[in-house]
Amino acid sequence: MKTVVVFSGGLDSTVLLYDLLQAGDDLLALSIDYGQRHRVELDHAEQIAKTLNVEWQVADLSGITHLIAGSSQTDDGIAVPHGHYAEESMKQTVVPNRNMIMLAVAAGWAINRQADRIAYGAHGGDHAIYPDCRPPFAAAMQNALQLADWHRVDLYAPYINWKKEEIVQRGVELNVDFSLTWSCYEGGAVHCGKCGTCIERKEAFALIGAADPTEYK
Amino acid sequence: MKTVVVFSGGLDSTVLLYDLLQAGDDLLALSIDYGQRHRVELDHAEQIAKTLNVEWQVADLSGITHLIAGSSQTDDGIAVPHGHYAEESMKQTVVPNRNMIMLAVAAGWAINRQADRIAYGAHGGDHAIYPDCRPPFAAAMQNALQLADWHRVDLYAPYINWKKEEIVQRGVELNVDFSLTWSCYEGGAVHCGKCGTCIERKEAFALIGAADPTEYK
Repeated sequence: MKTVVVFSGGLDSTVLLYDLLQAGDDLLALSIDYGQRHRVELDHAEQIAKTLNVEWQVADLSGITHLIAGSSQTDDGIAVPHGHYAEESMKQTVVPNRNMIMLAVAAGWAINRQADRIAYGAHGGDHAIYPDCRPPFAAAMQNALQLADWHRVDLYAPYINWKKEEIVQRGVELNVDFSLTWSCYEGGAVHCGKCGTCIERKEAFALIGAADPTEYK
Repeated sequence: MKTVVVFSGGLDSTVLLYDLLQAGDDLLALSIDYGQRHRVELDHAEQIAKTLNVEWQVADLSGITHLIAGSSQTDDGIAVPHGHYAEESMKQTVVPNRNMIMLAVAAGWAINRQADRIAYGAHGGDHAIYPDCRPPFAAAMQNALQLADWHRVDLYAPYINWKKEEIVQRGVELNVDFSLTWSCYEGGAVHCGKCGTCIERKEAFALIGAADPTEYK
């Protein structure tokens, strides 16, 4: 099975990369540069892909950021909200149609390389605020992918009903080096510990009693 | 109604732009630079948008062409096939997953600008060789769009069951200045007259007995 993995260098997609590698997949890892404030995640993605000896490419979407500006993830003028993911303020972190764009580009690469599927690490914890992380969206994209080209590409989202801590648990089983992963929406040298992803990350390790190697500010 | 139009500067999307303008829509025109050989179409798109006083933006996707290379439209090493669209050789002109990528980016802009819908000029003549110009694909993308964000964006593809000559006929009714439009897949100063789009363009004018202002080599 040849699989293009949408790979941010974050916790979820890194566990997914290890998971598919263990399953014996032939992997192509794709990171997206959409002008995110936390571009540092790309360095983490590159390092992890290199460590695992997986082909890694960047889709540079900086040429469309003027169209999708206005999120705290891409606009330096908007502060990253602090607090828990579930809060209304977290909607500010949403880049318009980011997942559809990422999946469409990943599918383009998959078709070009005759891969069997694309995979992304959307999970249950994302559902509350991100429509494009929910199972119905994934199912709709799977359907659209079947109709987009002669070459069939499936969409694989194995964690879509998992909680964050279940992904961490799976990562522990797979001996994932979590210290290489990056979650924080701020672009600092270490994780801020206060934004939605940092809080969710800390909670996930705590909930399953696993050691969190992350350095928080 | 606020509408983002995927606008190549070609015949179909130009008629679509005139059509929506006549309908009274508030228009945003989006051209895509995906490293196409016929980048000259972008100049035509800009000129038409300026003439019609429509806001025009370019989504620069040159940062992903290394992922979707291998089509005669993007790869200088592959010759543009001559002859009729229906031929097998025309598959070489397909950029992997181009329409899904274009629609996803257009939808991102539409969400950001709180537009009601995105529109594209896919038509019946494209169906034979382009899966992502067929009605089932458009329906699947419409469905995925409904699930992608809190803000609802519809997909409008009014010509999807039209023949090319019906679009030209509609353009004649709308007094479209066809001389401003660009179809040719080659990147020359004038239309080559031999590639699939040129042949289809010539045939469409001839079929309805309309004057073709295009200069062919």
